[in-house]
Amino acid sequence: MNDSDSSGWRNTTIDDAQAAQNPEIAHDVARIKQLRQSIDNVDTAIVSLLAERFKYTAEVGALKAKAGFAPEDRERESRQSVRLKQVAISAGLDPNIEENYREFVVTEAKNRHQRIAEAGGDPGVLDVYA
Amino acid sequence: MNDSDSSGWRNTTIDDAQAAQNPEIAHDVARIKQLRQSIDNVDTAIVSLLAERFKYTAEVGALKAKAGFAPEDRERESRQSVRLKQVAISAGLDPNIEENYREFVVTEAKNRHQRIAEAGGDPGVLDVYA
Repeated sequence: MNDSDSSGWRNTTIDDAQAAQNPEIAHDVARIKQLRQSIDNVDTAIVSLLAERFKYTAEVGALKAKAGFAPEDRERESRQSVRLKQVAISAGLDPNIEENYREFVVTEAKNRHQRIAEAGGDPGVLDVYA
Repeated sequence: MNDSDSSGWRNTTIDDAQAAQNPEIAHDVARIKQLRQSIDNVDTAIVSLLAERFKYTAEVGALKAKAGFAPEDRERESRQSVRLKQVAISAGLDPNIEENYREFVVTEAKNRHQRIAEAGGDPGVLDVYA
């Protein structure tokens, strides 16, 4: 039922065929399928929100380049960090996951601000994806 | 106006004091402040959705451990990858960012599935944060 790949992860394909072969776990397979649909819905929402987030940060990047501001603002990052940790704890999310998320988006945004500045303030340097 | 830290990023604190000292960029500072509020709103929404996502994957992890399924399901990951890339392109998000997001959440979820399995199927091993 299981195998593993070069990454070292053991692998199980969980699908209707699996359930048909193992009737005793058919109920668990059905519930996993249902949860996966909810996970997919959450991912659709998050990816759509990330698209909006990077549109906002592209505009920030162009404004920073125009005004001669650097890509980084450590005071802003410090406030973001404190605020989002609180949001994570209230929502029941492990703050380590929130911290990884924040580092991921902030670093990505700063790299893009740098590229916009190097292109003379033109967010078009980021091609069709601002 | 700018300084840099050990990470090599140049830094600018963008705030009301900055605008007061440099009236010619006060308008840009005001717009950045407005965009930052929208960015914060997006982050609140995403962190809240991540909390829900990890509640769902904690339940998947417990079901997988109970049924003897491995943490990884490569067929599922492959379908997720194709689907989310399409969502990203439709939404105007750079697919590289979407891919980094997906790898981040999927790897985090698999690590947690592994810990649940090692704890005999008890998602409580992830403490208060499922």
